Amino acid sequence: MAETVSTRLEVRWGECDPAGIVYHPSFIDWFSVARMHFLAEHGIQYMREFHDTGITIVVTDVACKYILPLRAEEHIEIVAKLVECSRTRLHFEYDVLKSDGSLSARGSTRHAFVKHGVIQPVNLQKASPELWTRIASLPTLARA
Amino acid sequence: MAETVSTRLEVRWGECDPAGIVYHPSFIDWFSVARMHFLAEHGIQYMREFHDTGITIVVTDVACKYILPLRAEEHIEIVAKLVECSRTRLHFEYDVLKSDGSLSARGSTRHAFVKHGVIQPVNLQKASPELWTRIASLPTLARA
Amino acid sequence: MAETVSTRLEVRWGECDPAGIVYHPSFIDWFSVARMHFLAEHGIQYMREFHDTGITIVVTDVACKYILPLRAEEHIEIVAKLVECSRTRLHFEYDVLKSDGSLSARGSTRHAFVKHGVIQPVNLQKASPELWTRIASLPTLARA
Amino acid sequence: MAETVSTRLEVRWGECDPAGIVYHPSFIDWFSVARMHFLAEHGIQYMREFHDTGITIVVTDVACKYILPLRAEEHIEIVAKLVECSRTRLHFEYDVLKSDGSLSARGSTRHAFVKHGVIQPVNLQKASPELWTRIASLPTLARA
Repeated sequence: MAETVSTRLEVRWGECDPAGIVYHPSFIDWFSVARMHFLAEHGIQYMREFHDTGITIVVTDVACKYILPLRAEEHIEIVAKLVECSRTRLHFEYDVLKSDGSLSARGSTRHAFVKHGVIQPVNLQKASPELWTRIASLPTLARA
Repeated sequence: MAETVSTRLEVRWGECDPAGIVYHPSFIDWFSVARMHFLAEHGIQYMREFHDTGITIVVTDVACKYILPLRAEEHIEIVAKLVECSRTRLHFEYDVLKSDGSLSARGSTRHAFVKHGVIQPVNLQKASPELWTRIASLPTLARA
Repeated sequence: MAETVSTRLEVRWGECDPAGIVYHPSFIDWFSVARMHFLAEHGIQYMREFHDTGITIVVTDVACKYILPLRAEEHIEIVAKLVECSRTRLHFEYDVLKSDGSLSARGSTRHAFVKHGVIQPVNLQKASPELWTRIASLPTLARA
Repeated sequence: MAETVSTRLEVRWGECDPAGIVYHPSFIDWFSVARMHFLAEHGIQYMREFHDTGITIVVTDVACKYILPLRAEEHIEIVAKLVECSRTRLHFEYDVLKSDGSLSARGSTRHAFVKHGVIQPVNLQKASPELWTRIASLPTLARA
Protein backbone atom coordinates (compact mmCIF):
# COMPACT_ATOMS: atom_id res chain seq x y z
CA MET A 1 0.00 0.00 0.00
CA ALA A 2 1.08 3.56 -0.64
CA GLU A 3 3.19 5.14 2.09
CA THR A 4 1.81 8.56 1.26
CA VAL A 5 -1.71 9.56 0.29
CA SER A 6 -2.45 12.74 -1.66
CA THR A 7 -5.60 14.79 -1.19
CA ARG A 8 -6.41 17.42 -3.78
CA LEU A 9 -8.46 20.45 -2.72
CA GLU A 10 -9.37 23.85 -4.06
CA VAL A 11 -8.89 26.66 -1.55
CA ARG A 12 -12.25 28.07 -0.44
CA TRP A 13 -13.07 31.76 -0.10
CA GLY A 14 -14.24 31.13 3.46
CA GLU A 15 -10.85 29.65 4.39
CA CYS A 16 -9.15 32.99 3.72
CA ASP A 17 -8.81 36.07 5.91
CA PRO A 18 -8.70 39.87 5.45
CA ALA A 19 -5.02 39.63 4.46
CA GLY A 20 -6.36 37.92 1.33
CA ILE A 21 -4.60 34.63 2.10
CA VAL A 22 -5.60 31.36 3.72
CA TYR A 23 -6.21 31.83 7.45
CA HIS A 24 -3.55 29.70 9.13
CA PRO A 25 -5.88 27.42 11.19
CA SER A 26 -7.42 26.25 7.88
CA PHE A 27 -4.25 24.28 7.21
CA ILE A 28 -4.78 22.40 10.48
CA ASP A 29 -8.32 21.59 9.33
CA TRP A 30 -6.93 20.30 6.02
CA PHE A 31 -4.63 17.95 7.95
CA SER A 32 -7.81 16.30 9.34
CA VAL A 33 -9.21 15.94 5.83
CA ALA A 34 -5.92 14.46 4.60
CA ARG A 35 -5.63 12.11 7.59
CA MET A 36 -9.13 10.72 7.19
CA HIS A 37 -8.44 10.32 3.49
CA PHE A 38 -5.18 8.48 4.30
CA LEU A 39 -7.11 6.04 6.49
CA ALA A 40 -9.93 5.65 3.94
CA GLU A 41 -7.44 4.90 1.16
CA HIS A 42 -6.17 2.09 3.37
CA GLY A 43 -9.66 0.72 3.91
CA ILE A 44 -10.47 2.40 7.23
CA GLN A 45 -13.56 4.62 7.16
CA TYR A 46 -13.08 6.71 10.28
CA MET A 47 -16.77 7.33 10.98
CA ARG A 48 -17.82 3.70 10.72
CA GLU A 49 -14.79 2.01 12.17
CA PHE A 50 -13.74 4.44 14.89
CA HIS A 51 -16.44 7.01 15.68
CA ASP A 52 -19.37 4.56 15.57
CA THR A 53 -17.58 1.99 17.70
CA GLY A 54 -16.87 4.47 20.48
CA ILE A 55 -13.17 5.02 19.89
CA THR A 56 -11.86 8.48 19.06
CA ILE A 57 -8.46 9.35 17.64
CA VAL A 58 -7.82 12.61 19.49
CA VAL A 59 -5.13 15.11 18.61
CA THR A 60 -2.51 15.60 21.34
CA ASP A 61 -0.08 17.81 19.43
CA VAL A 62 -0.12 19.85 16.27
CA ALA A 63 2.60 21.88 14.57
CA CYS A 64 2.81 23.70 11.27
CA LYS A 65 5.42 25.76 9.50
CA TYR A 66 4.04 28.20 6.91
CA ILE A 67 6.23 28.90 3.89
CA LEU A 68 4.19 30.21 0.94
CA PRO A 69 0.76 31.79 1.37
CA LEU A 70 -2.25 30.54 -0.59
CA ARG A 71 -5.35 32.32 -1.76
CA ALA A 72 -8.88 31.34 -2.78
CA GLU A 73 -9.34 29.17 -5.88
CA GLU A 74 -5.78 27.81 -5.77
CA HIS A 75 -5.51 24.08 -6.37
CA ILE A 76 -3.46 22.37 -3.70
CA GLU A 77 -2.31 18.89 -2.79
CA ILE A 78 -1.84 17.62 0.75
CA VAL A 79 0.54 14.70 1.02
CA ALA A 80 0.02 12.74 4.25
CA LYS A 81 2.16 10.01 5.72
CA LEU A 82 2.07 8.03 8.94
CA VAL A 83 5.47 8.34 10.53
CA GLU A 84 4.85 6.41 13.71
CA CYS A 85 2.26 3.99 14.96
CA SER A 86 1.89 2.21 18.29
CA ARG A 87 -0.89 0.58 20.33
CA THR A 88 -1.63 3.93 21.95
CA ARG A 89 -0.37 6.63 19.58
CA LEU A 90 -0.20 7.79 15.95
CA HIS A 91 2.02 10.44 14.38
CA PHE A 92 1.28 11.91 10.94
CA GLU A 93 3.19 14.39 8.78
CA TYR A 94 1.78 16.56 5.99
CA ASP A 95 3.13 18.59 3.10
CA VAL A 96 0.83 21.16 1.53
CA LEU A 97 1.88 21.76 -2.08
CA LYS A 98 0.88 24.51 -4.49
CA SER A 99 -0.15 23.55 -8.02
CA ASP A 100 3.41 24.14 -9.26
CA GLY A 101 4.69 21.64 -6.70
CA SER A 102 6.28 24.23 -4.39
CA LEU A 103 5.87 23.75 -0.65
CA SER A 104 3.28 25.98 0.99
CA ALA A 105 3.36 24.45 4.47
CA ARG A 106 4.63 21.45 6.38
CA GLY A 107 3.02 20.13 9.52
CA SER A 108 2.49 17.22 11.86
CA THR A 109 -0.12 15.86 14.24
CA ARG A 110 0.22 13.41 17.12
CA HIS A 111 -2.71 11.37 18.37
CA ALA A 112 -3.92 9.07 21.12
CA PHE A 113 -6.74 6.53 21.02
CA VAL A 114 -9.41 7.36 23.60
CA LYS A 115 -12.86 6.15 24.52
CA HIS A 116 -15.77 8.46 23.74
CA GLY A 117 -16.85 10.60 26.64
CA VAL A 118 -13.92 9.54 28.76
CA ILE A 119 -10.95 11.05 26.92
CA GLN A 120 -8.65 8.60 28.62
CA PRO A 121 -5.98 6.94 26.50
CA VAL A 122 -6.61 3.30 25.69
CA ASN A 123 -4.43 0.56 24.31
CA LEU A 124 -6.10 -0.01 20.96
CA GLN A 125 -5.02 -3.64 20.84
CA LYS A 126 -6.95 -4.29 24.06
CA ALA A 127 -9.89 -2.00 23.30
CA SER A 128 -10.45 -3.35 19.81
CA PRO A 129 -8.09 -6.09 18.60
CA GLU A 130 -9.69 -6.04 15.17
CA LEU A 131 -9.13 -2.29 14.66
CA TRP A 132 -5.60 -2.62 15.98
CA THR A 133 -4.82 -5.28 13.38
CA ARG A 134 -5.91 -2.88 10.67
CA ILE A 135 -4.05 0.11 12.08
CA ALA A 136 -0.94 -2.02 12.59
CA SER A 137 -0.99 -2.96 8.91
CA LEU A 138 -0.79 0.66 7.73
CA PRO A 139 2.42 1.58 5.93
CA THR A 140 4.63 3.61 8.24
CA LEU A 141 8.24 4.51 8.81
CA ALA A 142 8.42 3.54 12.48
CA ARG A 143 6.45 1.13 14.59
CA ALA A 144 6.65 0.86 18.35
CA MET B 1 2.37 47.20 31.37
CA ALA B 2 1.20 43.67 32.02
CA GLU B 3 3.46 40.94 30.68
CA THR B 4 0.51 38.64 30.14
CA VAL B 5 -2.97 39.47 28.91
CA SER B 6 -5.97 37.26 29.69
CA THR B 7 -8.87 36.78 27.30
CA ARG B 8 -12.02 35.19 28.63
CA LEU B 9 -14.26 33.27 26.23
CA GLU B 10 -17.16 30.87 26.35
CA VAL B 11 -16.72 27.81 24.14
CA ARG B 12 -19.13 27.91 21.20
CA TRP B 13 -21.17 24.98 19.95
CA GLY B 14 -19.80 25.54 16.46
CA GLU B 15 -16.23 25.21 17.74
CA CYS B 16 -16.86 21.59 18.74
CA ASP B 17 -16.79 18.41 16.68
CA PRO B 18 -18.66 15.08 16.59
CA ALA B 19 -16.47 13.77 19.43
CA GLY B 20 -18.36 16.32 21.56
CA ILE B 21 -15.23 18.35 22.31
CA VAL B 22 -13.61 21.46 20.89
CA TYR B 23 -12.25 20.78 17.41
CA HIS B 24 -8.47 21.25 17.75
CA PRO B 25 -8.02 24.01 15.11
CA SER B 26 -10.38 26.19 17.17
CA PHE B 27 -7.60 26.61 19.73
CA ILE B 28 -5.36 28.05 16.99
CA ASP B 29 -8.15 30.51 16.14
CA TRP B 30 -8.38 31.50 19.83
CA PHE B 31 -4.66 32.28 19.80
CA SER B 32 -5.43 34.96 17.16
CA VAL B 33 -8.17 36.39 19.37
CA ALA B 34 -5.82 36.41 22.36
CA ARG B 35 -2.95 37.93 20.38
CA MET B 36 -5.05 40.79 19.01
CA HIS B 37 -6.37 41.35 22.52
CA PHE B 38 -2.80 41.42 23.86
CA LEU B 39 -1.90 44.11 21.34
CA ALA B 40 -5.11 46.08 21.98
CA GLU B 41 -4.51 46.02 25.74
CA HIS B 42 -1.15 47.64 25.00
CA GLY B 43 -2.74 50.31 22.85
CA ILE B 44 -2.26 48.73 19.42
CA GLN B 45 -5.49 48.16 17.49
CA TYR B 46 -4.40 45.66 14.87
CA MET B 47 -6.92 46.66 12.21
CA ARG B 48 -6.20 50.36 12.38
CA GLU B 49 -2.48 50.31 13.04
CA PHE B 50 -1.36 47.31 11.01
CA HIS B 51 -4.01 46.12 8.54
CA ASP B 52 -5.07 49.61 7.39
CA THR B 53 -1.48 50.78 6.95
CA GLY B 54 -0.59 47.89 4.68
CA ILE B 55 1.48 45.83 7.09
CA THR B 56 0.42 42.31 8.01
CA ILE B 57 1.69 40.23 10.91
CA VAL B 58 1.68 36.80 9.26
CA VAL B 59 2.03 33.51 11.09
CA THR B 60 5.15 31.53 10.18
CA ASP B 61 4.87 28.74 12.77
CA VAL B 62 2.22 27.42 15.07
CA ALA B 63 2.34 24.65 17.66
CA CYS B 64 -0.12 23.41 20.26
CA LYS B 65 -0.13 20.69 22.86
CA TYR B 66 -3.61 19.51 23.92
CA ILE B 67 -3.98 18.34 27.50
CA LEU B 68 -7.61 18.50 28.67
CA PRO B 69 -10.54 18.57 26.24
CA LEU B 70 -13.18 21.29 26.39
CA ARG B 71 -16.83 21.27 25.44
CA ALA B 72 -19.46 23.85 24.50
CA GLU B 73 -20.50 26.42 27.13
CA GLU B 74 -17.29 26.00 29.15
CA HIS B 75 -15.75 29.25 30.33
CA ILE B 76 -12.09 29.48 29.46
CA GLU B 77 -9.23 31.91 29.82
CA ILE B 78 -6.41 32.33 27.32
CA VAL B 79 -3.26 33.82 28.79
CA ALA B 80 -1.02 35.32 26.11
CA LYS B 81 2.52 36.60 26.43
CA LEU B 82 5.09 37.93 24.00
CA VAL B 83 8.25 35.91 24.48
CA GLU B 84 10.38 37.46 21.77
CA CYS B 85 10.29 40.57 19.67
CA SER B 86 12.60 41.83 16.96
CA ARG B 87 12.46 44.22 13.99
CA THR B 88 11.30 41.36 11.78
CA ARG B 89 9.72 38.76 14.06
CA LEU B 90 7.36 38.16 16.99
CA HIS B 91 6.92 35.07 19.13
CA PHE B 92 3.87 34.56 21.36
CA GLU B 93 2.96 31.83 23.84
CA TYR B 94 -0.52 30.93 25.08
CA ASP B 95 -2.02 28.94 27.93
CA VAL B 96 -5.67 27.91 27.64
CA LEU B 97 -7.13 27.43 31.10
CA LYS B 98 -10.38 25.78 32.18
CA SER B 99 -12.59 27.59 34.68
CA ASP B 100 -10.98 25.63 37.55
CA GLY B 101 -7.57 26.91 36.47
CA SER B 102 -6.34 23.60 35.05
CA LEU B 103 -4.40 23.69 31.80
CA SER B 104 -6.35 22.63 28.73
CA ALA B 105 -3.74 23.45 26.10
CA ARG B 106 -0.46 25.28 25.61
CA GLY B 107 0.70 26.72 22.33
CA SER B 108 2.85 29.20 20.51
CA THR B 109 2.90 31.22 17.31
CA ARG B 110 5.78 32.85 15.46
CA HIS B 111 5.28 35.79 13.13
CA ALA B 112 6.94 37.96 10.51
CA PHE B 113 6.00 41.47 9.42
CA VAL B 114 5.12 41.57 5.72
CA LYS B 115 3.71 44.05 3.27
CA HIS B 116 0.18 43.43 2.00
CA GLY B 117 0.00 41.61 -1.27
CA VAL B 118 3.71 40.93 -1.31
CA ILE B 119 4.16 38.56 1.62
CA GLN B 120 7.83 39.43 1.80
CA PRO B 121 9.33 40.00 5.24
CA VAL B 122 10.06 43.59 6.08
CA ASN B 123 12.11 45.27 8.77
CA LEU B 124 9.36 46.98 10.74
CA GLN B 125 11.69 49.72 11.92
CA LYS B 126 12.34 50.71 8.30
CA ALA B 127 8.82 50.11 7.00
CA SER B 128 7.13 52.02 9.80
CA PRO B 129 9.39 53.57 12.47
CA GLU B 130 6.36 54.73 14.42
CA LEU B 131 4.81 51.25 14.62
CA TRP B 132 8.19 49.77 15.49
CA THR B 133 8.52 52.14 18.44
CA ARG B 134 5.21 50.90 19.76
CA ILE B 135 5.95 47.22 19.18
CA ALA B 136 9.40 47.66 20.73
CA SER B 137 7.80 49.01 23.88
CA LEU B 138 5.69 45.88 24.47
CA PRO B 139 6.60 43.90 27.58
CA THR B 140 8.51 40.78 26.57
CA LEU B 141 11.00 38.30 27.95
CA ALA B 142 13.56 38.58 25.13
CA ARG B 143 14.36 41.28 22.67
CA ALA B 144 16.67 40.88 19.67
CA MET C 1 -38.01 37.49 32.48
CA ALA C 2 -36.56 39.53 29.65
CA GLU C 3 -38.16 39.01 26.25
CA THR C 4 -34.89 39.74 24.51
CA VAL C 5 -31.38 38.73 25.47
CA SER C 6 -28.32 40.64 24.28
CA THR C 7 -25.00 39.00 23.56
CA ARG C 8 -21.96 41.22 23.13
CA LEU C 9 -19.10 39.99 20.97
CA GLU C 10 -15.99 41.38 19.33
CA VAL C 11 -15.63 40.42 15.68
CA ARG C 12 -12.75 37.98 15.19
CA TRP C 13 -10.13 38.19 12.44
CA GLY C 14 -10.90 34.59 11.49
CA GLU C 15 -14.57 35.43 10.98
CA CYS C 16 -13.68 37.78 8.11
CA ASP C 17 -12.95 37.07 4.46
CA PRO C 18 -10.70 38.48 1.72
CA ALA C 19 -13.20 41.28 1.09
CA GLY C 20 -12.09 42.52 4.52
CA ILE C 21 -15.52 42.08 6.06
CA VAL C 22 -17.24 39.41 8.13
CA TYR C 23 -17.83 36.28 6.04
CA HIS C 24 -21.62 35.94 5.90
CA PRO C 25 -21.94 32.42 7.44
CA SER C 26 -20.29 33.81 10.60
CA PHE C 27 -23.53 35.65 11.35
CA ILE C 28 -25.38 32.31 11.31
CA ASP C 29 -22.82 30.98 13.80
CA TRP C 30 -23.40 34.03 16.03
CA PHE C 31 -27.12 33.24 16.03
CA SER C 32 -26.22 29.92 17.73
CA VAL C 33 -24.15 31.76 20.32
CA ALA C 34 -27.00 34.22 20.94
CA ARG C 35 -29.63 31.46 21.11
CA MET C 36 -27.69 29.41 23.66
CA HIS C 37 -27.11 32.58 25.64
CA PHE C 38 -30.86 33.35 25.49
CA LEU C 39 -31.61 29.91 26.93
CA ALA C 40 -28.85 30.18 29.56
CA GLU C 41 -30.13 33.59 30.71
CA HIS C 42 -33.48 31.87 31.30
CA GLY C 43 -31.87 29.10 33.32
CA ILE C 44 -31.50 26.48 30.58
CA GLN C 45 -27.91 25.33 29.99
CA TYR C 46 -28.17 23.71 26.59
CA MET C 47 -25.35 21.20 27.05
CA ARG C 48 -26.56 19.89 30.39
CA GLU C 49 -30.29 20.05 29.86
CA PHE C 50 -30.62 19.16 26.19
CA HIS C 51 -27.44 17.65 24.75
CA ASP C 52 -26.63 15.44 27.75
CA THR C 53 -30.20 14.15 28.02
CA GLY C 54 -30.29 13.02 24.41
CA ILE C 55 -32.49 15.75 22.96
CA THR C 56 -31.18 18.02 20.23
CA ILE C 57 -32.68 21.32 19.08
CA VAL C 58 -31.93 21.06 15.35
CA VAL C 59 -32.18 23.93 12.90
CA THR C 60 -34.79 23.42 10.17
CA ASP C 61 -34.65 26.88 8.57
CA VAL C 62 -32.33 29.82 8.64
CA ALA C 63 -32.56 33.22 6.97
CA CYS C 64 -30.51 36.37 7.19
CA LYS C 65 -30.63 39.79 5.57
CA TYR C 66 -27.30 41.64 5.51
CA ILE C 67 -27.44 45.41 5.75
CA LEU C 68 -24.15 46.89 6.98
CA PRO C 69 -20.85 45.01 6.75
CA LEU C 70 -18.65 44.48 9.79
CA ARG C 71 -14.93 44.06 10.12
CA ALA C 72 -12.53 42.58 12.66
CA GLU C 73 -12.32 44.17 16.14
CA GLU C 74 -15.77 45.78 15.86
CA HIS C 75 -17.90 45.45 18.97
CA ILE C 76 -21.34 44.11 18.19
CA GLU C 77 -24.50 43.18 20.02
CA ILE C 78 -26.84 40.36 19.01
CA VAL C 79 -30.36 40.76 20.30
CA ALA C 80 -32.24 37.45 20.33
CA LYS C 81 -35.91 36.83 20.96
CA LEU C 82 -38.13 33.77 20.87
CA VAL C 83 -41.04 34.57 18.58
CA GLU C 84 -42.81 31.24 18.68
CA CYS C 85 -42.71 28.16 20.81
CA SER C 86 -44.63 24.89 20.60
CA ARG C 87 -44.27 21.29 21.79
CA THR C 88 -42.35 20.47 18.62
CA ARG C 89 -40.89 23.73 17.33
CA LEU C 90 -39.07 26.95 18.22
CA HIS C 91 -38.64 30.13 16.20
CA PHE C 92 -36.03 32.76 17.07
CA GLU C 93 -35.26 36.17 15.59
CA TYR C 94 -31.98 38.08 15.84
CA ASP C 95 -30.78 41.64 15.28
CA VAL C 96 -27.05 42.20 14.90
CA LEU C 97 -26.20 45.75 15.94
CA LYS C 98 -23.05 47.76 15.41
CA SER C 99 -21.58 49.69 18.34
CA ASP C 100 -23.44 52.85 17.24
CA GLY C 101 -26.72 50.93 17.40
CA SER C 102 -27.23 50.71 13.64
CA LEU C 103 -28.53 47.43 12.23
CA SER C 104 -25.91 45.26 10.55
CA ALA C 105 -28.07 42.19 9.92
CA ARG C 106 -31.41 40.66 10.81
CA GLY C 107 -32.10 36.95 10.79
CA SER C 108 -34.20 34.09 12.05
CA THR C 109 -33.89 30.39 12.79
CA ARG C 110 -36.56 27.71 13.11
CA HIS C 111 -36.03 24.55 15.09
CA ALA C 112 -37.41 21.13 15.88
CA PHE C 113 -36.76 18.93 18.90
CA VAL C 114 -35.22 15.61 17.88
CA LYS C 115 -33.71 12.59 19.57
CA HIS C 116 -29.97 12.12 19.23
CA GLY C 117 -28.95 9.83 16.44
CA VAL C 118 -32.47 9.55 15.12
CA ILE C 119 -33.16 13.07 13.87
CA GLN C 120 -36.88 12.45 14.04
CA PRO C 121 -39.04 15.22 15.48
CA VAL C 122 -40.38 14.56 18.93
CA ASN C 123 -43.08 16.17 21.02
CA LEU C 124 -40.98 17.66 23.79
CA GLN C 125 -43.84 17.45 26.28
CA LYS C 126 -43.92 13.67 25.80
CA ALA C 127 -40.17 13.15 25.48
CA SER C 128 -39.29 15.21 28.52
CA PRO C 129 -42.18 16.81 30.45
CA GLU C 130 -39.74 18.55 32.76
CA LEU C 131 -37.83 20.23 29.92
CA TRP C 132 -41.09 21.14 28.23
CA THR C 133 -42.26 22.95 31.35
CA ARG C 134 -39.14 25.03 31.30
CA ILE C 135 -39.28 25.79 27.58
CA ALA C 136 -42.97 26.63 27.86
CA SER C 137 -42.17 29.22 30.50
CA LEU C 138 -39.82 31.19 28.24
CA PRO C 139 -41.02 34.68 27.31
CA THR C 140 -42.31 34.66 23.76
CA LEU C 141 -44.66 36.55 21.49
CA ALA C 142 -46.68 33.55 20.29
CA ARG C 143 -47.36 30.15 21.77
CA ALA C 144 -48.96 27.28 19.89
CA MET D 1 -23.85 26.44 -21.37
CA ALA D 2 -25.25 24.38 -18.53
CA GLU D 3 -28.00 26.04 -16.52
CA THR D 4 -26.94 24.17 -13.38
CA VAL D 5 -23.46 23.37 -12.15
CA SER D 6 -22.79 20.49 -9.77
CA THR D 7 -20.07 20.56 -7.13
CA ARG D 8 -19.13 17.29 -5.44
CA LEU D 9 -17.73 17.41 -1.92
CA GLU D 10 -17.01 15.03 0.91
CA VAL D 11 -18.30 16.22 4.27
CA ARG D 12 -15.42 17.16 6.58
CA TRP D 13 -15.15 16.21 10.24
CA GLY D 14 -14.61 19.87 11.12
CA GLU D 15 -17.89 20.84 9.44
CA CYS D 16 -19.85 18.76 11.97
CA ASP D 17 -20.99 19.58 15.49
CA PRO D 18 -21.49 17.74 18.79
CA ALA D 19 -24.87 16.45 17.55
CA GLY D 20 -22.77 14.36 15.15
CA ILE D 21 -24.19 16.07 12.06
CA VAL D 22 -23.11 18.92 9.81
CA TYR D 23 -23.26 22.24 11.65
CA HIS D 24 -25.88 24.25 9.76
CA PRO D 25 -23.71 27.29 8.82
CA SER D 26 -21.44 24.88 6.89
CA PHE D 27 -24.17 24.60 4.25
CA ILE D 28 -24.01 28.36 3.74
CA ASP D 29 -20.25 28.05 3.26
CA TRP D 30 -20.83 25.31 0.68
CA PHE D 31 -23.11 27.66 -1.24
CA SER D 32 -20.07 29.95 -1.70
CA VAL D 33 -18.01 27.03 -2.98
CA ALA D 34 -20.80 26.04 -5.38
CA ARG D 35 -21.34 29.63 -6.55
CA MET D 36 -17.66 30.21 -7.32
CA HIS D 37 -17.60 26.87 -9.10
CA PHE D 38 -20.69 27.89 -11.13
CA LEU D 39 -18.91 31.06 -12.24
CA ALA D 40 -15.63 29.23 -12.96
CA GLU D 41 -17.44 26.62 -15.07
CA HIS D 42 -18.73 29.54 -17.13
CA GLY D 43 -15.26 30.99 -17.54
CA ILE D 44 -15.31 33.51 -14.71
CA GLN D 45 -12.56 33.03 -12.11
CA TYR D 46 -13.88 35.06 -9.21
CA MET D 47 -10.51 35.96 -7.70
CA ARG D 48 -8.96 37.20 -10.93
CA GLU D 49 -11.98 38.78 -12.55
CA PHE D 50 -13.80 40.24 -9.57
CA HIS D 51 -11.66 40.35 -6.43
CA ASP D 52 -8.48 41.53 -8.16
CA THR D 53 -10.30 44.21 -10.12
CA GLY D 54 -11.82 45.76 -7.00
CA ILE D 55 -15.38 44.54 -7.41
CA THR D 56 -16.94 42.33 -4.76
CA ILE D 57 -20.10 40.25 -5.10
CA VAL D 58 -21.47 40.66 -1.57
CA VAL D 59 -24.26 38.59 -0.07
CA THR D 60 -27.36 40.59 0.83
CA ASP D 61 -29.68 37.69 1.75
CA VAL D 62 -29.30 34.03 2.54
CA ALA D 63 -31.89 31.38 3.31
CA CYS D 64 -31.71 27.64 3.80
CA LYS D 65 -34.21 24.90 4.59
CA TYR D 66 -32.68 21.80 6.19
CA ILE D 67 -34.34 18.49 5.39
CA LEU D 68 -31.97 15.55 5.93
CA PRO D 69 -28.92 15.79 8.19
CA LEU D 70 -25.46 14.83 6.92
CA ARG D 71 -22.46 13.48 8.72
CA ALA D 72 -18.70 13.36 8.14
CA GLU D 73 -17.38 11.38 5.16
CA GLU D 74 -20.70 11.53 3.29
CA HIS D 75 -20.38 12.33 -0.39
CA ILE D 76 -22.65 15.15 -1.43
CA GLU D 77 -23.50 17.13 -4.52
CA ILE D 78 -24.45 20.81 -4.55
CA VAL D 79 -26.46 21.85 -7.60
CA ALA D 80 -26.29 25.60 -8.19
CA LYS D 81 -28.29 27.70 -10.59
CA LEU D 82 -28.55 31.40 -11.28
CA VAL D 83 -32.22 32.33 -11.09
CA GLU D 84 -31.96 36.04 -11.65
CA CYS D 85 -29.35 38.43 -12.95
CA SER D 86 -29.39 42.20 -13.35
CA ARG D 87 -26.86 45.03 -13.62
CA THR D 88 -26.87 45.37 -9.85
CA ARG D 89 -27.99 42.01 -8.44
CA LEU D 90 -27.62 38.23 -8.65
CA HIS D 91 -29.82 35.52 -7.19
CA PHE D 92 -28.67 31.90 -6.87
CA GLU D 93 -30.43 28.75 -5.70
CA TYR D 94 -28.82 25.57 -4.40
CA ASP D 95 -29.86 21.98 -3.79
CA VAL D 96 -27.65 19.86 -1.53
CA LEU D 97 -28.07 16.19 -2.43
CA LYS D 98 -27.01 13.08 -0.56
CA SER D 99 -25.22 10.33 -2.46
CA ASP D 100 -28.55 8.51 -3.01
CA GLY D 101 -29.94 11.64 -4.65
CA SER D 102 -32.25 12.60 -1.79
CA LEU D 103 -32.50 16.27 -0.86
CA SER D 104 -30.56 17.27 2.25
CA ALA D 105 -31.09 21.02 2.03
CA ARG D 106 -32.28 23.74 -0.30
CA GLY D 107 -31.15 27.34 -0.14
CA SER D 108 -30.68 30.62 -1.90
CA THR D 109 -28.41 33.65 -1.82
CA ARG D 110 -28.96 37.17 -3.16
CA HIS D 111 -26.09 39.45 -4.06
CA ALA D 112 -25.13 42.99 -4.99
CA PHE D 113 -22.05 44.20 -6.83
CA VAL D 114 -20.03 46.60 -4.69
CA LYS D 115 -16.70 48.34 -4.83
CA HIS D 116 -14.01 47.14 -2.44
CA GLY D 117 -13.76 49.15 0.72
CA VAL D 118 -16.87 51.12 -0.03
CA ILE D 119 -19.60 48.49 0.14
CA GLN D 120 -21.88 50.66 -1.94
CA PRO D 121 -23.88 48.99 -4.70
CA VAL D 122 -22.64 49.68 -8.20
CA ASN D 123 -24.15 49.16 -11.62
CA LEU D 124 -21.82 46.50 -12.98
CA GLN D 125 -22.38 47.63 -16.55
CA LYS D 126 -21.02 51.06 -15.67
CA ALA D 127 -18.30 49.88 -13.28
CA SER D 128 -16.94 47.24 -15.63
CA PRO D 129 -18.66 46.85 -19.01
CA GLU D 130 -16.46 43.88 -19.85
CA LEU D 131 -17.39 41.96 -16.68
CA TRP D 132 -21.05 42.84 -17.19
CA THR D 133 -20.97 41.34 -20.69
CA ARG D 134 -19.72 38.10 -19.24
CA ILE D 135 -22.17 38.04 -16.33
CA ALA D 136 -25.01 38.91 -18.70
CA SER D 137 -24.15 35.88 -20.80
CA LEU D 138 -24.60 33.41 -17.92
CA PRO D 139 -27.51 31.00 -18.31
CA THR D 140 -30.36 32.08 -16.06
CA LEU D 141 -34.09 31.80 -15.73
CA ALA D 142 -34.84 35.50 -15.39
CA ARG D 143 -33.03 38.61 -16.49
CA ALA D 144 -33.92 42.10 -15.41
